[in-house]
Amino acid sequence: MAGNTFGQIFRLTSFGESHGVAIGGIVDGCPAGLELDLDAVQTDLDRRRPGQSDLTTPRNESDTVEFLSGIFEGKSTGSPIAFLIKNKDQHSKDYDALKNVYRPSHADFVFDAKYGHRDHRGGGRSSARETASRVAAGAIARQFLASEGITIQAFVSAIAEARLDTAAEDIDFSLPENELRCPDEKTAAEMRRLIEEARDTGDTLGGIVTLIAKGVPVGLGEPVFDKLHADLGKAMLSINAVKGFETGSGFGAAAMRGSVHNDAFSKKEGKTSTNTNNSGGIQGGISNGMDIVCRVAFKPVASIRKEQDTLTRAGESTTIKIEGRHDPCVVPRAVPIVEAMAALVLADHLLRNRTSKI
Amino acid sequence: MAGNTFGQIFRLTSFGESHGVAIGGIVDGCPAGLELDLDAVQTDLDRRRPGQSDLTTPRNESDTVEFLSGIFEGKSTGSPIAFLIKNKDQHSKDYDALKNVYRPSHADFVFDAKYGHRDHRGGGRSSARETASRVAAGAIARQFLASEGITIQAFVSAIAEARLDTAAEDIDFSLPENELRCPDEKTAAEMRRLIEEARDTGDTLGGIVTLIAKGVPVGLGEPVFDKLHADLGKAMLSINAVKGFETGSGFGAAAMRGSVHNDAFSKKEGKTSTNTNNSGGIQGGISNGMDIVCRVAFKPVASIRKEQDTLTRAGESTTIKIEGRHDPCVVPRAVPIVEAMAALVLADHLLRNRTSKI
Amino acid sequence: MAGNTFGQIFRLTSFGESHGVAIGGIVDGCPAGLELDLDAVQTDLDRRRPGQSDLTTPRNESDTVEFLSGIFEGKSTGSPIAFLIKNKDQHSKDYDALKNVYRPSHADFVFDAKYGHRDHRGGGRSSARETASRVAAGAIARQFLASEGITIQAFVSAIAEARLDTAAEDIDFSLPENELRCPDEKTAAEMRRLIEEARDTGDTLGGIVTLIAKGVPVGLGEPVFDKLHADLGKAMLSINAVKGFETGSGFGAAAMRGSVHNDAFSKKEGKTSTNTNNSGGIQGGISNGMDIVCRVAFKPVASIRKEQDTLTRAGESTTIKIEGRHDPCVVPRAVPIVEAMAALVLADHLLRNRTSKI
Amino acid sequence: MAGNTFGQIFRLTSFGESHGVAIGGIVDGCPAGLELDLDAVQTDLDRRRPGQSDLTTPRNESDTVEFLSGIFEGKSTGSPIAFLIKNKDQHSKDYDALKNVYRPSHADFVFDAKYGHRDHRGGGRSSARETASRVAAGAIARQFLASEGITIQAFVSAIAEARLDTAAEDIDFSLPENELRCPDEKTAAEMRRLIEEARDTGDTLGGIVTLIAKGVPVGLGEPVFDKLHADLGKAMLSINAVKGFETGSGFGAAAMRGSVHNDAFSKKEGKTSTNTNNSGGIQGGISNGMDIVCRVAFKPVASIRKEQDTLTRAGESTTIKIEGRHDPCVVPRAVPIVEAMAALVLADHLLRNRTSKI
Repeated sequence: MAGNTFGQIFRLTSFGESHGVAIGGIVDGCPAGLELDLDAVQTDLDRRRPGQSDLTTPRNESDTVEFLSGIFEGKSTGSPIAFLIKNKDQHSKDYDALKNVYRPSHADFVFDAKYGHRDHRGGGRSSARETASRVAAGAIARQFLASEGITIQAFVSAIAEARLDTAAEDIDFSLPENELRCPDEKTAAEMRRLIEEARDTGDTLGGIVTLIAKGVPVGLGEPVFDKLHADLGKAMLSINAVKGFETGSGFGAAAMRGSVHNDAFSKKEGKTSTNTNNSGGIQGGISNGMDIVCRVAFKPVASIRKEQDTLTRAGESTTIKIEGRHDPCVVPRAVPIVEAMAALVLADHLLRNRTSKI
Repeated sequence: MAGNTFGQIFRLTSFGESHGVAIGGIVDGCPAGLELDLDAVQTDLDRRRPGQSDLTTPRNESDTVEFLSGIFEGKSTGSPIAFLIKNKDQHSKDYDALKNVYRPSHADFVFDAKYGHRDHRGGGRSSARETASRVAAGAIARQFLASEGITIQAFVSAIAEARLDTAAEDIDFSLPENELRCPDEKTAAEMRRLIEEARDTGDTLGGIVTLIAKGVPVGLGEPVFDKLHADLGKAMLSINAVKGFETGSGFGAAAMRGSVHNDAFSKKEGKTSTNTNNSGGIQGGISNGMDIVCRVAFKPVASIRKEQDTLTRAGESTTIKIEGRHDPCVVPRAVPIVEAMAALVLADHLLRNRTSKI
Repeated sequence: MAGNTFGQIFRLTSFGESHGVAIGGIVDGCPAGLELDLDAVQTDLDRRRPGQSDLTTPRNESDTVEFLSGIFEGKSTGSPIAFLIKNKDQHSKDYDALKNVYRPSHADFVFDAKYGHRDHRGGGRSSARETASRVAAGAIARQFLASEGITIQAFVSAIAEARLDTAAEDIDFSLPENELRCPDEKTAAEMRRLIEEARDTGDTLGGIVTLIAKGVPVGLGEPVFDKLHADLGKAMLSINAVKGFETGSGFGAAAMRGSVHNDAFSKKEGKTSTNTNNSGGIQGGISNGMDIVCRVAFKPVASIRKEQDTLTRAGESTTIKIEGRHDPCVVPRAVPIVEAMAALVLADHLLRNRTSKI
Repeated sequence: MAGNTFGQIFRLTSFGESHGVAIGGIVDGCPAGLELDLDAVQTDLDRRRPGQSDLTTPRNESDTVEFLSGIFEGKSTGSPIAFLIKNKDQHSKDYDALKNVYRPSHADFVFDAKYGHRDHRGGGRSSARETASRVAAGAIARQFLASEGITIQAFVSAIAEARLDTAAEDIDFSLPENELRCPDEKTAAEMRRLIEEARDTGDTLGGIVTLIAKGVPVGLGEPVFDKLHADLGKAMLSINAVKGFETGSGFGAAAMRGSVHNDAFSKKEGKTSTNTNNSGGIQGGISNGMDIVCRVAFKPVASIRKEQDTLTRAGESTTIKIEGRHDPCVVPRAVPIVEAMAALVLADHLLRNRTSKI
């Protein structure tokens, strides 16, 4: 009920605060017999970790994952897979000044109200550091999906005003990721310029991550409450700083006519396909075999160096400037998190779908 | 796992197909001792039902709810509240022609693939008729919320190009709803014109519903996977035809700077408040006492009278024109559904939050 | 959380009070494509219903089940299967005298304390009438199990001092059930005599039901918390009046030596078998392919005609004689309930086990 | 679904194999603000650990618990409490001989069948070592219960033929535990003699643990499937080697008359009480304020030094003598496990009950 478990069959239970001993999680329900490449898990964590480039926070969390159970002779055993990532390079002192001041658009105030007793160091449980556990678990899910021919890829499609309008289906992912994780060098350069500008002025930027999943079989998702895109939406909206989610035609659908929006069926290479993909690969909550496409909107990072009005814990007016070591824009680092959450949802529904028929 | 249950403590399990005997549901976890106004439940159902005006389908589903359990002497007993809505005015014959043809952007094809055996009459389980159960259950949740001072109100903020840009916080809901459920007569008139045009050309329209919840106490929502807006997002995305969800600043946040987006804290009438509400009443996944605001995008209705290319069940190319009795635009009828889903989420989190502290 | 749902994948959500409009339930997660014999569901309900013989209550609940959804052309569709059983022959007046007096060993007192507001008529939600919903749902589960070669059979192995000591594995179930549901005529006659004696003196009797499941494949059950016998135990202990549960050697195991208790493995007809079955078909929580055997102890019915000391709702001492129309012994009627709960558990684990391996 | 999570609100997710890196778990849903005595957690683990006396296995698992999250300044924060217990003193070699031979009445065979891929070292996930995680989590639950005035105490009431018949309600728990955990020195001496005899002959013994919980408020437990004793039963039956569970009058109820079994109500010290406690503190699945009493039957340890017939993995007949370092009787060590599981169930239901009323 406290909501630290995600998924029904393939499920992650996560733990850990930014400035505690460690973060980590338990993946329960991974089928036995899956060959696991643990280096690939570390690679995904490295894509998320801070300190990757001069555009990100100078915090250097090495984020080394250790596995404690559930794997034997290189394969999953069907038992829970526990892992942990020790916390290092914690500057808890940085946060002492913030113990009694509520940072605007952070969770400090609501935590105090909800729990009474709060670990104020660096956001505690509501720190984005928690997402490293999602990336580790998602990397396992991704290997399960790969064993069934499903691949997942996300990329940065917008940072502030810099936007890439190419449809996800038309992007060539064979090229190596750049540091912006935007698969168009010109847009990436513009994004870099905006981030540098924000960094230099003590400000921060939001953006959009687009996700595409290929090879998803027909039939994943449940037709009523657990529609595939509803579970994807919840997964994405549970990531720190996410403010919006759309699938297929998304908010654009609101202005379209049915005659334009409908995806006509046709056979392509012997497979039932649709000529357009406004459905985003999902119809009636169930995957239809086309690429699954969705977009996730991130707000700008709330930790800014500019002075802001706020209140103390005692309710008195004050101002705050957040120094610490924060990212001017987390959107590129969010790409592996979005992929991980999508992998968790698809792995879960792949298993759930094993029970739909006699 | 089959996903016909929604919620953790206050939970709805729903059942029923559009052309079966009845639809309905069981509300489990409604606290004992709640005085229930069953007429108010019927009123919400009447707001959702077809045939309300010349803008909606001429299908006349009277949608009369019957309660079977869990209520004694006008109050909830803590036992499950079962209800049913008998199906009437079913023209099953209308659908015989569609048995072996896949309607574009409907769930026919994916149902066949997922289950093998399909009730093809009128969409079966994936018919929007299923949402009547949500409205009935949501109406009970709403009465629980009202007993704690929480009110929920949704309205149509866009139909195709006709858009109302007034912030939800600035709208006066004391006026009676018009048939468009758009609280601005001029925009409503434009919406009416667009719907008539679509109806006359055999086409359909999408739109946007905006929701605002007032009086929500600080502390609802769980900080990691079950963030309040993540659960609201899942709730809304599980409604038929929804393609997008955003909360507070939403997709607009992607283009904002942190210094503009952050909501500065201040005291208002002795209460910790924020000067702006880009957070949409939720910070770190937990309600902060401000109005909760979100927006839900609906695609145009998939049943259009225009000819479309498609495939038969056997995989052969064909064309289809959907006659039946369908809405040119369901967005006004979706307003009570959006409210119901929000009520279910808030009722559940209100109860969940009772266990957060010693 | 209110606990009216049982199972993880194949799951029953039940509703209804003894003196309300109807009882019933929703079976969610029944795989699509199962051919359903609805008469067989009614047959199991008839085995449970009151008024079957002169040994049971003269209450005549006809218990006719109606199906509302989830079945099309005689087969499950994968959508929730809702059913209801209307309440008839309710003598609510019988209970008016009991409104303010707590019947000993009934749930009246605890309901008042827990919920504040109580439907006092005939036990309300805690009436054994609720078990009819279990029998209906269990009958569906049983058909799913039968399609996989699994059969379930329970019988009365003890009523008061009358006990049948034959091992469940040695009983011939091909004979028709007698009214005692004890597959030994001599013991059945003794049971009849004891029940008549209790009936005539205004007293009641307890007893034991033994269950055997044959054809269960190896591998059902999860090794830690959801051990197969733990879920069977919970299922049985959730039946009204059950005070104990044991599997295989049961309480007798406490006095045995390991060298006697261990079940040596051997091949029988090419199948890995055990020479003895102290494990009751389950090792480490997982079925091993042998017959699953367990025993369920029922206390005597709490409604007795003899005078008893008790308290009024206001806390004053009083005496009570329960007139009504009650069974002197419910154990024979409990047989189909025990079978139903076992069927629900096995159907659920059969589906759960579909996800254990890659 | 893989069943490594126990509880609904206060819930434990456990992980770990006997010969992996570590075992441990995550406690989610512990309310914030609970003062935690971590030494008391270690004390309960020490009561469970091997090597406590000459009656137990010479394996020396120090079982030192480390906490990783969810505790700040000595109090729970409402965030998940993760803990781990590193595995030491593992003699994996001891098990090489057993890789391809199925130990009778162990889970080796069913694991191979269920998962295909098995960690054969020492039972892997189905080792009783897993119960250390339950004890650690239970010790936290116990502190939550203590803060509400609830205490839990278990003791050994039988080992083989040596039985203590004193009612749990009549036992004086103020004396220090002896090594048998049997609160009667004479019976304890007889138990010691039987265990020494079994140890010397290479055999093993079963027994019974009785549990009593005092101070439980009226109202815990849900009236239908999640009856308090049903959840206690599942909890106990999920412990390794448990074959039976009974509450209150238990199996003895089967031979009693209602007039003897019913617990008459009366006022004692102003409190609604019952004169007898055949209900075991639970009526209709809900606690009634009296002591909760239940009994748990353990089979003899399956690892015996005597020669047994069995099969190899390839299906060929062979014999086996299990050397290793095994307990002749685990029942005294099971006492803290039984207490822990009871604490988890009661903590969960205490929180669940917070939502039963308006």
